[in-house]
Amino acid sequence: MRFLDTTLRDGEQTPGVALTRDKKLLIARALDEMGVSIIEAGSAITSEGERNSIKAVTNAGLNAEICSYCRIVKFDVDRALECDVDSIHLVAPVSDLHIKTKIKKDRDAVRQIAAEVTEYAKDHGLIVELSGEDASRADPDFLKAVYADGVDAGADRLCFCDTVGLLVPERTTEIFRDLSSSLKAPISVHCHNDFGLATANTIAALAAGAKQAHVTVNGLGERAGNASLEEVIMSLEWLYKYDTGIKHEMIYRTSRLVSRLTGIPVSPNKALVGGNAFTHEAGIHVHGLLADKATYEPMSPEYIGRQRQIVLGKHAGRSSISLALKEMGLEADDVQTEEIFNRVKQMGDQGKYVTDADLQAIAETVLDIYREPLVKLEEFTIVSGNRVTPTASIKLNVKDKEIVQAGIGNGPVDAVINAIRRAVSSCAEDIILEEYHVDAITGGTDALVEVRVKLSKNGKVITASGARTDIIMASVEAVMNGMNRLIRVE
Amino acid sequence: MRFLDTTLRDGEQTPGVALTRDKKLLIARALDEMGVSIIEAGSAITSEGERNSIKAVTNAGLNAEICSYCRIVKFDVDRALECDVDSIHLVAPVSDLHIKTKIKKDRDAVRQIAAEVTEYAKDHGLIVELSGEDASRADPDFLKAVYADGVDAGADRLCFCDTVGLLVPERTTEIFRDLSSSLKAPISVHCHNDFGLATANTIAALAAGAKQAHVTVNGLGERAGNASLEEVIMSLEWLYKYDTGIKHEMIYRTSRLVSRLTGIPVSPNKALVGGNAFTHEAGIHVHGLLADKATYEPMSPEYIGRQRQIVLGKHAGRSSISLALKEMGLEADDVQTEEIFNRVKQMGDQGKYVTDADLQAIAETVLDIYREPLVKLEEFTIVSGNRVTPTASIKLNVKDKEIVQAGIGNGPVDAVINAIRRAVSSCAEDIILEEYHVDAITGGTDALVEVRVKLSKNGKVITASGARTDIIMASVEAVMNGMNRLIRVE
Repeated sequence: MRFLDTTLRDGEQTPGVALTRDKKLLIARALDEMGVSIIEAGSAITSEGERNSIKAVTNAGLNAEICSYCRIVKFDVDRALECDVDSIHLVAPVSDLHIKTKIKKDRDAVRQIAAEVTEYAKDHGLIVELSGEDASRADPDFLKAVYADGVDAGADRLCFCDTVGLLVPERTTEIFRDLSSSLKAPISVHCHNDFGLATANTIAALAAGAKQAHVTVNGLGERAGNASLEEVIMSLEWLYKYDTGIKHEMIYRTSRLVSRLTGIPVSPNKALVGGNAFTHEAGIHVHGLLADKATYEPMSPEYIGRQRQIVLGKHAGRSSISLALKEMGLEADDVQTEEIFNRVKQMGDQGKYVTDADLQAIAETVLDIYREPLVKLEEFTIVSGNRVTPTASIKLNVKDKEIVQAGIGNGPVDAVINAIRRAVSSCAEDIILEEYHVDAITGGTDALVEVRVKLSKNGKVITASGARTDIIMASVEAVMNGMNRLIRVE
Repeated sequence: MRFLDTTLRDGEQTPGVALTRDKKLLIARALDEMGVSIIEAGSAITSEGERNSIKAVTNAGLNAEICSYCRIVKFDVDRALECDVDSIHLVAPVSDLHIKTKIKKDRDAVRQIAAEVTEYAKDHGLIVELSGEDASRADPDFLKAVYADGVDAGADRLCFCDTVGLLVPERTTEIFRDLSSSLKAPISVHCHNDFGLATANTIAALAAGAKQAHVTVNGLGERAGNASLEEVIMSLEWLYKYDTGIKHEMIYRTSRLVSRLTGIPVSPNKALVGGNAFTHEAGIHVHGLLADKATYEPMSPEYIGRQRQIVLGKHAGRSSISLALKEMGLEADDVQTEEIFNRVKQMGDQGKYVTDADLQAIAETVLDIYREPLVKLEEFTIVSGNRVTPTASIKLNVKDKEIVQAGIGNGPVDAVINAIRRAVSSCAEDIILEEYHVDAITGGTDALVEVRVKLSKNGKVITASGARTDIIMASVEAVMNGMNRLIRVE
């Protein structure tokens, strides 16, 4: 079985995504290292810039076959040849709808032109995968005629495109059983996810004789995207016990890379690569999980290169709270644990997410070891503008000593955080701001802004948050909360 | 066929989600209006606050049956009774793994206790759906014995839970064919999405005799979530031509409501309800789309209550650019269109997303109707802090007149936007900031911040963006860009 990753063409057709040459190359290298057989690097016809990007991929010395998308037009093949690609994904519209409304030709013309362009590409030394676009809405006999003529003209592979995602698994099985037994060249499957069935359809096709699947990292692509690489690979590996030969431990890293470079976020509940896919909150479950990891896990997260996370919330049980307290080095008896548990529940009922810093604050109050924060904010002021270097002044009370400092930065948030860092450097110079995250702000300029930070000190990592209508205040609050906890932990 | 929406229980088990009573009620009302048969409103055992929320749903006079999750513990049933629910989803662990590691009992004990608690609930007037947790990893004979004892004890319905999402469609079909023919009560299906197959498995079960499906809005739920309501309903309606009785035109609205209230974003490429699901960018496709909407659309977006969007980018074709220019009231000849087209491509090659304001700027330059922006930014300064009212001063050049204004706000961004609004009120007092959106910021405090705004004036709406490392600068840039375009359009 071979995997053709179309991230770099279908994935880039995601509205709002345009990859520069360097980004494209980074993704292509990751796919190649992961072991994908073919990379559809782009559509050579798009622009001069796109051709430069494809050329950069073909010249990168990768193991994978590098492919360009082409319409059944010789001009497109010529552009692909300029990019030195190994192969083309030659797409012929095959449904009457596409033939009539899009290219305004008839069936016979499509059949003839597809064969001619296939022959032209073969004469120029290209590997040709001849694809039927909108095949799921095409007349099956006509589709087979296009494929047969294509094979006669030299096509190396054929492909069935479910262009608007209308297939269901049963129908896919029927279609591919028929095609794989009657065609004279191997058939590939290309599924779109308009109804959420792309993964199931892709697997059904492979089980029914397809030799190759088109997939995209994170299921990117036009509209609802294409079949997702990670779901198809891991379903085969884990549910069908089929060794795909893909370096599965690279899956998560590659998903993050593609999300970062395309700017398209992955929803928390996306299978395998979503932020929550291996996160456990509910109390009952964490209890089970401690007893045996497999209880609420379909597979080991390490298999795709990621780690299990346990978070607290409204459904947190006593066992998950005990575990978290233990990790913080705090000891609570049963009565104290019960009280901490109740306060976490209260926060949950108010709709709040319980961060490490929140739990620590609750626990310390209950365990009566509450101490004044070591670092207290007295005041801060920032000045910024289009002709002013963003500047912040800050007055902190650190271990009962007043410290005043100033900082500059790229913007007001950066300036104030720099000022805080300087101010605390006497007592905690090795605190590192590992991550700074602001949830998307939607609504008006007076919407609540939630800032989450991850700070570390000598390998100890904690998370903290701040929520205000003012992004600067929220940032300061989050950093101060986290910093106090890190210093106190010592 | 009946749909049990478990959003309010499974969905709330999404890490980080905790719904207040009012939010829960809003979602329950939307589900009820949409025509969902059963609403699993929560788990009565969770907390006092949770019980108040469930009670609020049961007392809301909805048509749907209101249900609470219960473990096979009488204490749980008592808590459910306190909430006046109609029914319980009574969950018994049935795999040896769950029985041994989680509740530390044996098979016989589970069988006996499940029947006892079923009888207890029936004696107290509840409808009982007895569920086998982790049924996909259970011994089928033992599972059937639990079900049979449950039915003897009065269980009204049974449910098969694929707790860690290990089913595949073929296996699901076998299981449900067997269960639906051998059980003496109707069987439900409850699928998790760990490998991206929850929708396909749910449909396979319904086709093989399941009478009811557990689904969640946006596929929320623990880890990778549960089968998604919108995918299951629309696959049945559109691909299987089955009338579910659900008010499908409410699907999109409900998805947005749930995303807003839970704070869990829906990825752009999510089937049906993702931001891009009916967005068209690629040039070829928009061309086809203009010819016939069906070419690249699986179904009409209006069916689920949303609209088609056309955006421009790297793959924009001449036809989509012509369409956009026409909508802007600009006329370009072939040579001009070609030049505009090339400049849009250049922006795309640089990895930029082309907003309305960008296209207008390009088009106006090419059409030689470029005019100086009517409103020019001369300077702005903001002062903010924890003991300072966020204050901004701004100097604008409006129609060659210098205007200086000040504004205050909830935070520095709010203050500067208020100052701009005041400054331009002489020439454009009816400009409304309809939407203000900041993409999630991840990385450091010096990461690039992208601000998108939607402004309107007398019903004419435009989008514009600004991108800087300073959120205030980015906000000012976006508003100024948009404002100039709105004023110029007049």
